Amino acid sequence: MTIHRYEPDGYHNTIGSHPAVLTVESGDTLITTTIDAFGWDQRGRQAAGRPNPQTGPFYVAGAEPGDTLAVDLVRLQPNRPTGFTRDVVSPNVVEPEYVWSLPQGELITWHIDPVRREATTAHPLPHLGQLCLPLDPMIGCFGVAPALGQAISTATSGPHGGNMDYRGFRAGTTAYFPVMAPGALFFIGDGHAVQGDGEIVGTGIETSFEVELVLRVLKGWRINWPRGENGDDLFTVGNARPLDQAVQHATTEMLRWLTESYGLTAQEASILLGQCGRYDLGNIYDPAYTMVCRLSKRWLPAERG
Amino acid sequence: MTIHRYEPDGYHNTIGSHPAVLTVESGDTLITTTIDAFGWDQRGRQAAGRPNPQTGPFYVAGAEPGDTLAVDLVRLQPNRPTGFTRDVVSPNVVEPEYVWSLPQGELITWHIDPVRREATTAHPLPHLGQLCLPLDPMIGCFGVAPALGQAISTATSGPHGGNMDYRGFRAGTTAYFPVMAPGALFFIGDGHAVQGDGEIVGTGIETSFEVELVLRVLKGWRINWPRGENGDDLFTVGNARPLDQAVQHATTEMLRWLTESYGLTAQEASILLGQCGRYDLGNIYDPAYTMVCRLSKRWLPAERG
Amino acid sequence: MTIHRYEPDGYHNTIGSHPAVLTVESGDTLITTTIDAFGWDQRGRQAAGRPNPQTGPFYVAGAEPGDTLAVDLVRLQPNRPTGFTRDVVSPNVVEPEYVWSLPQGELITWHIDPVRREATTAHPLPHLGQLCLPLDPMIGCFGVAPALGQAISTATSGPHGGNMDYRGFRAGTTAYFPVMAPGALFFIGDGHAVQGDGEIVGTGIETSFEVELVLRVLKGWRINWPRGENGDDLFTVGNARPLDQAVQHATTEMLRWLTESYGLTAQEASILLGQCGRYDLGNIYDPAYTMVCRLSKRWLPAERG
Amino acid sequence: MTIHRYEPDGYHNTIGSHPAVLTVESGDTLITTTIDAFGWDQRGRQAAGRPNPQTGPFYVAGAEPGDTLAVDLVRLQPNRPTGFTRDVVSPNVVEPEYVWSLPQGELITWHIDPVRREATTAHPLPHLGQLCLPLDPMIGCFGVAPALGQAISTATSGPHGGNMDYRGFRAGTTAYFPVMAPGALFFIGDGHAVQGDGEIVGTGIETSFEVELVLRVLKGWRINWPRGENGDDLFTVGNARPLDQAVQHATTEMLRWLTESYGLTAQEASILLGQCGRYDLGNIYDPAYTMVCRLSKRWLPAERG
Repeated sequence: MTIHRYEPDGYHNTIGSHPAVLTVESGDTLITTTIDAFGWDQRGRQAAGRPNPQTGPFYVAGAEPGDTLAVDLVRLQPNRPTGFTRDVVSPNVVEPEYVWSLPQGELITWHIDPVRREATTAHPLPHLGQLCLPLDPMIGCFGVAPALGQAISTATSGPHGGNMDYRGFRAGTTAYFPVMAPGALFFIGDGHAVQGDGEIVGTGIETSFEVELVLRVLKGWRINWPRGENGDDLFTVGNARPLDQAVQHATTEMLRWLTESYGLTAQEASILLGQCGRYDLGNIYDPAYTMVCRLSKRWLPAERG
Repeated sequence: MTIHRYEPDGYHNTIGSHPAVLTVESGDTLITTTIDAFGWDQRGRQAAGRPNPQTGPFYVAGAEPGDTLAVDLVRLQPNRPTGFTRDVVSPNVVEPEYVWSLPQGELITWHIDPVRREATTAHPLPHLGQLCLPLDPMIGCFGVAPALGQAISTATSGPHGGNMDYRGFRAGTTAYFPVMAPGALFFIGDGHAVQGDGEIVGTGIETSFEVELVLRVLKGWRINWPRGENGDDLFTVGNARPLDQAVQHATTEMLRWLTESYGLTAQEASILLGQCGRYDLGNIYDPAYTMVCRLSKRWLPAERG
Repeated sequence: MTIHRYEPDGYHNTIGSHPAVLTVESGDTLITTTIDAFGWDQRGRQAAGRPNPQTGPFYVAGAEPGDTLAVDLVRLQPNRPTGFTRDVVSPNVVEPEYVWSLPQGELITWHIDPVRREATTAHPLPHLGQLCLPLDPMIGCFGVAPALGQAISTATSGPHGGNMDYRGFRAGTTAYFPVMAPGALFFIGDGHAVQGDGEIVGTGIETSFEVELVLRVLKGWRINWPRGENGDDLFTVGNARPLDQAVQHATTEMLRWLTESYGLTAQEASILLGQCGRYDLGNIYDPAYTMVCRLSKRWLPAERG
Repeated sequence: MTIHRYEPDGYHNTIGSHPAVLTVESGDTLITTTIDAFGWDQRGRQAAGRPNPQTGPFYVAGAEPGDTLAVDLVRLQPNRPTGFTRDVVSPNVVEPEYVWSLPQGELITWHIDPVRREATTAHPLPHLGQLCLPLDPMIGCFGVAPALGQAISTATSGPHGGNMDYRGFRAGTTAYFPVMAPGALFFIGDGHAVQGDGEIVGTGIETSFEVELVLRVLKGWRINWPRGENGDDLFTVGNARPLDQAVQHATTEMLRWLTESYGLTAQEASILLGQCGRYDLGNIYDPAYTMVCRLSKRWLPAERG
């Protein structure tokens, strides 16, 4: 159960089978830093280019295709006093003819106060003044090397994770990824101090982070899409377009989880999801959109393992 | 501020410019009953056919095209001791090749206890036993006569409302509909004692209701899509396929609300929605899907009216 | 085999169970006129409002729900010397951020020469001069009364037909519609002298028509979606959004046709469609899009009837 | 103008910045072979694994990001006497509830006769007998290294080309790809002896090919998506889901071509596409679908270059 402190000296704009920067054992803790979506680090220096430069990859000893990598998000800590957002919704989230009514967006700056745990617009807005929001730090882009030796842009997402921009990936959550390459090859970056559902302006409050994670190999647990779990809920993640297809992936993956791990019949899983299921919109901005199927664990029997 | 008690003696399977069953004044209270989605009434008798038979229409004096009809959902009360659901998810919400793994669904019965406010499966399930859920009554299908003299099936939804199957339409919420015909011609039906996001088994817990509503005409307030409001939130409703398009309608309608009624700039509205906005999945089962854009009122200045 | 000449004195903007203007026998010929999509008649007078005013409905004796109405498009004749189009593509057919690059469109006039069978822009275009296109007249919007007593806007389409805007509905084609109301109640309007795939500017060359049709009842032939046939091909029509879903309806309907009427196995139908099938894009502009699945009859055995 | 004959001794399942197997000059001819989608070569031996193993990459001297690579498809020649198809349509192309009616598919064999230019099912079908189709050879998967050093599975497609499965990529056509890496790095594979629109059974008649190509660098011609040209038509290719988005990419790319290279105004380009444009469905099976926007060159002024 070693604690590794890793200070990156380079970043990747694709998630793929790149040389590992560090090897860890299953159960080890990793403390490292991430830079923001545009490549600015904690001192505001341009340390890499777009999109979403990733720290890593980390090789997790013993992880093989067919296993699952569990990533406990222990601590997600903005580590500089500013972040930025875009200030106009993306044209793909409005009616096509309404695009003509939208101005083209610019970047605005936010002050991040880690003690009061608030983010505040650097400049007053005409009618809202200095808008102040509670911090809710999350990881926008993380995942593992995809199959076939692919190297996939960190602008998008897929079964390997990637740029899912789901605000449920906050501290206290465990993310699960299907291992598709030896050692899993875990990458992480793109921290958001705050983000709404859908990331409809194309950004959260983008900033650099210090992160503390535990990486664990779950041998022989085969999953198809990223999953997650926190104290209350199980969730499954579909990354695709349109949202309808993302829902299909997330729902199918949840049905597999409930029937395979909890031993429910298809009818029982359906009854629970039909009356108690929740869907969250991760993002409707990136090349692949993200929908999440979520279920409270209070309705479930013990996992069979 | 009259209180009208109306006992229906017939129902409609389309929402259109049918003869009014009652005329009310703006601000009047209406107490009436609805039958379930399959047409069974509070005594379990088949009182009408599918889909989603509606009580009404109610003519609201003074409502003209270009106005908005506000419907305060004061009380939504299941009025019989049973409801039903389907027990398998709909094939459109899973990966296409996973359909082969799904059994075809059947109806199952639930007992509804209005005192304990619980619904319980009539028969024990193999691993979940007698599943018991807290009631959260909502209206699946309601709305006003659409434009052009159209009469639209209560299976689907549109700018006029209809079968939105959004669990946010619960007591304590005000729904807003764009008036498109003289008197608005309000219809209501399809109560659900409980429903998950997306209505992915094709039903909530379907039952008959007694409902208490206040109908108010908001003169000269022109809206494009249904909207809603409760103590915490504003929301806007897009009804379309795919979900992406429903998001476009809901987001555009929310931008209109924030800029026209609250005086925000497009940038301010975007910043709020980008960092604080929420999306709810009403249904992904009906011919038109429903996505809801929602924003906490805590972030807003006073409405300009 | 009577020939009916019907001169309309009113039009409908919905397709529904309206009072019939004429009753015909199965096999009768109908000669009538249609006005253009905006309601201008053959003398250029505004005879009705938008959208797509329809001539009819015509009651076809003997047609009952569960039958099919065959409509032989014998002659489709533009009957005035002008038509109009919009001159900019619709914002929904370009990348969302490209909308900012598009001007907003206007209407332009075309001269229609029925003898040379050509349409020519009334004014020269900057680089194309007076663009001259061969006529290829087609019906944009036609169909039969939908189920449940619905009345559906002529802006959209569905299982009943409606505003499909498919250029395959030209003279020499037989269209088939599922009868859903007694007498079928056939409507027709919205002639286009020319139209590209997708109707991406929102119009074809819109003009008024004289049409000659034969209406035939095919007793007991139950279909789910509009179909068509010409000397070369069979085709089936899906009307929905997104195009993916329109493809699903059209393909399923073609599989039904090939297996039910031609006796093919699912594998044979799949092999033919997989290697010889064609898809046409009717429209990607209207509220429901239209995709057509088409197969040459040269590959087929004799129909079993 | 050298003629290169290249015999591959290895294949790639991703399109990316892999080491070049051969360097050619702009204007050189390349004669090489491809193996089928499952990796079987001209002697029926398994030479590589799935999906769609590619021959290459070929480095084209002088090609730099911002240029375009033109690929003249001079000759596409099936070089073994058999091919195979699947025999049931994919579940994603039918209505979701119709999947239950579909059998699961198998592979069937076809005999390919290069002299008579026909493909015939190896075994008679129950009602169609030995189905015999004219050959129409095409390339299913080809393209150039994508941006960012990505390596993308040959199962899918994007701005770099890839698995577009469009039957318009036949001999006599020139394909254009946006160069995104030095030398362009051209890959080719996945020949189909025949394929219907949409590749709805998931295969064409899959077989191995000998191909003859000319590779040309068009310096400083910047394009965003694959394009093509034959004696009659220009076309542009959008690869995305849903089909609606593929249409948006293809249409936008055609508007760029017509305005930038032919000097048309947005209105002129719109008028042509609106009344004369055609759309082809490449595939509706792969992870990204393909729609093609096509326009006859007869309507165009001379290209300005």
